[in-house]
Amino acid sequence: MKLRPVRMGIDTYHELVLYMRRDCPICLSEGFTASTRLLVSSADRQVIATLNVVDPEKLEDDCVGLSDALWQVLHPDDGITVSHAPVVTSMSDVRAKMYDRRLSEDALQRIITDIAHGWYSDVQISAFLAACAGDRLNRNEVVGLTRAMINIGETLTWPGIDAVYDKHCIGGLPGNRTTPIVVAICSAAGLILPKTSSRAITSPAGTADVMDVLTRVDLDIDEIRRTVELAGGCLAWGGAVRLSPVDDLLIRVERALDLDSKGQLVASVLSKKIAAGSTHILIDIPVGRTAKVRDNNDAESLAELFRHAGEVLGVRVECVFTDGSQPIGRGIGPALEARDVLAVLKNDADAPADLREKSLDLSARLLAMANHGNTEAARARATALLDDGSAWLQFEKICRAQGRFSTIPESPHSKELQAHQNGVISEIDNRRISRLAKLAGAPRAVSAGIELFVHLGDTVKRGDTLLTIHAESEGELDYALLYYLDNRDMISVGDNG
Amino acid sequence: MKLRPVRMGIDTYHELVLYMRRDCPICLSEGFTASTRLLVSSADRQVIATLNVVDPEKLEDDCVGLSDALWQVLHPDDGITVSHAPVVTSMSDVRAKMYDRRLSEDALQRIITDIAHGWYSDVQISAFLAACAGDRLNRNEVVGLTRAMINIGETLTWPGIDAVYDKHCIGGLPGNRTTPIVVAICSAAGLILPKTSSRAITSPAGTADVMDVLTRVDLDIDEIRRTVELAGGCLAWGGAVRLSPVDDLLIRVERALDLDSKGQLVASVLSKKIAAGSTHILIDIPVGRTAKVRDNNDAESLAELFRHAGEVLGVRVECVFTDGSQPIGRGIGPALEARDVLAVLKNDADAPADLREKSLDLSARLLAMANHGNTEAARARATALLDDGSAWLQFEKICRAQGRFSTIPESPHSKELQAHQNGVISEIDNRRISRLAKLAGAPRAVSAGIELFVHLGDTVKRGDTLLTIHAESEGELDYALLYYLDNRDMISVGDNG
Repeated sequence: MKLRPVRMGIDTYHELVLYMRRDCPICLSEGFTASTRLLVSSADRQVIATLNVVDPEKLEDDCVGLSDALWQVLHPDDGITVSHAPVVTSMSDVRAKMYDRRLSEDALQRIITDIAHGWYSDVQISAFLAACAGDRLNRNEVVGLTRAMINIGETLTWPGIDAVYDKHCIGGLPGNRTTPIVVAICSAAGLILPKTSSRAITSPAGTADVMDVLTRVDLDIDEIRRTVELAGGCLAWGGAVRLSPVDDLLIRVERALDLDSKGQLVASVLSKKIAAGSTHILIDIPVGRTAKVRDNNDAESLAELFRHAGEVLGVRVECVFTDGSQPIGRGIGPALEARDVLAVLKNDADAPADLREKSLDLSARLLAMANHGNTEAARARATALLDDGSAWLQFEKICRAQGRFSTIPESPHSKELQAHQNGVISEIDNRRISRLAKLAGAPRAVSAGIELFVHLGDTVKRGDTLLTIHAESEGELDYALLYYLDNRDMISVGDNG
Repeated sequence: MKLRPVRMGIDTYHELVLYMRRDCPICLSEGFTASTRLLVSSADRQVIATLNVVDPEKLEDDCVGLSDALWQVLHPDDGITVSHAPVVTSMSDVRAKMYDRRLSEDALQRIITDIAHGWYSDVQISAFLAACAGDRLNRNEVVGLTRAMINIGETLTWPGIDAVYDKHCIGGLPGNRTTPIVVAICSAAGLILPKTSSRAITSPAGTADVMDVLTRVDLDIDEIRRTVELAGGCLAWGGAVRLSPVDDLLIRVERALDLDSKGQLVASVLSKKIAAGSTHILIDIPVGRTAKVRDNNDAESLAELFRHAGEVLGVRVECVFTDGSQPIGRGIGPALEARDVLAVLKNDADAPADLREKSLDLSARLLAMANHGNTEAARARATALLDDGSAWLQFEKICRAQGRFSTIPESPHSKELQAHQNGVISEIDNRRISRLAKLAGAPRAVSAGIELFVHLGDTVKRGDTLLTIHAESEGELDYALLYYLDNRDMISVGDNG
């Protein structure tokens, strides 16, 4: 029996929700009640959705309501049929993992395939992630998971090109926007870098959020290929292409759990890079007390897992441990970070020196992967390309190839905050700085965020400006300010150096 | 700023959902988007709910919509305020558990308290359950979890009474409705049994579903006390009282994951019994290939955990391993099982012998706990009380004390199914038999379910009736029938004995 689909006008985010009337004959005869998992079919498309039951006056006879997300995946053009969801058999693999059994590559492929088809509820994805968290995935399982995530999506190939480069930072450091600069320098040097980035997950800005301020980032596979052919590199948003599409589904739930899992992280990063056709991958691992990775032991074990998985999967992975003790650059938030990136590329006098130096270091490491490890020559090359304006021209070329090169918006509301005492900056809490920028509206509000004017070891006087909060609404400015006043010690000013 | 609450008329089951307009000034200024977790306050009540964003025409200005479940917990009488949900700090304990660290009693109390206050989303509860599944809770953690679950709810005390008895079956065996018979026999013998039972979780009927056919089961704490004072025992639904209230929240999600976890099971059972004031607890553990517990090793390790936790928590727990190779009795489903219970209590000629014998065995074990272990005398006493009609009178007394004693409804639709060959019944699959009864509508449709006319070892001839399916709608009868025809081997008929 076919039912007529109507939009409910309800945004449930990603959750697929079907709304049926309490007195609907199908509900009654099939025994459907609220939260029943249902197989919803339209033409040749089938997904599993969760039932919400509504009062009769909310829907006409013989109609079913679709949440925005369900409408998007099903885009029904005629009737819809509804039946009990089949048992998701790969959940028995997830249960086995909860009982500490190893997951075979086949089991991981079954799980990832079912998640990709929309057969897992968030509650089920959460159980999968929890069962695999911490050190519960061994090396083989991480490789198996990565391969399964590559297999389920699209892949890019680069015929005739031997080496395709990528760099990735595992995150946790506000303002650390080296990627656009590194891509500009290294593609100016002739490397091929089809770079796709994510939007912010738990941070105030991801590389895709920053690039979105300057140019079009929602490129499809063909546009990525054309941009790279034209400019040697691109700076696209990964979410518009289906490279390792399950990753986004997992990350959503990881975010709700505030969960960072080593095995998931390696599979997430490598599956996207390998699906994009990369052969040489540089991983930036910031290490610091309030960064994602807190000490060198953790960093080494993560790096070992990255290198091992890369080796088995046939790509070269190098890891570099960087200083994660404080934010990089001045701006934190999409537009503010875009401003820092341009300042470095244009060799502005007040460009943040730490962002410039770190970008040069990483560029040198990538160039050294191409020139048999001569880091000194690579560093000199990178510096020359930045200083003589080649990197800037190259960046502009990439932006124009992607579709536009925009000016950076200014925030309508801002508030400067001053030091309350003389002293030396002794500690900066990355996590609370990020939270402050997010409370101010970043990354959703693109001009919102923080400008941070001090670094560790700087001497400040009472009344010197420590930071400026930028917001797009007064409410958000107040909200962030309140948090700052409760958390002034996110920037510690010590008595002496 | 206060918003006016309106019922959305949407049943989301247990999920607390708040609906706000896309163009609502608070959403815009606070940066709320779909799936944001919000602190929702009305008068002195506060809960965390999930935001769904709706088209402007779905709600009037300055109004917010509440799902049925949110309306029930908040029952707002004036305005509502909404803000960002605070960070749920006990989630860091859950994350520690994912990383295989031990949970202290304090940590478990924090988690259970936050769950009780409605601060965990289902995704977060799922992560907690997955992190504790399998053997991941050690004995101390199981004790800590049990104690935390007791502390968060109401408790019953029985001043002046030394020994309070209870029995519990861990489930997995269709038709195993011994509890009403055991309570009738043992309370006739003078034991105090304030029995609370659950409704079905994954089975076709729980004891509360069966008793609901015969009498009122939604007793509050005072009514339980009064019934027990009047009749020595009761047979109430545990869901109407807040004895270990978190258990119901956990069970909902365990059900969605189809997860049976040993530690959770022990904490769930003991917390409810101890909160009800029980001091002597008998646990029935059916063992069989298609039961919950598949072999004696598993049964022994579960029993050991039950006994240890009981000892630490100051109650006496005995476990009895019973035959879990096939269903017990004839009926499977609320009304059909109620019929079996009455038949045994009234000593009807066609009463199921297996249900009678098992009920007598369990009654004898409970009576023996009271008379220093003389099982033989206890068994003779139980048999006498059943045979002379005392148990039947006692059962009637309990039902009338609870508020009514109803006749059992008949199903409007049924279908007999016959053997296709001569032979001997060699195997019966408990899981598929349960599924068949559920597809027919049990437990929601109280008269639906199965009558099973054969047991292991019975000789049948082609054309003999194996079972009858009962349903309350033709759709459900067809649906169950279809499943049966695909799964005839849920009852295996072998060539010879």
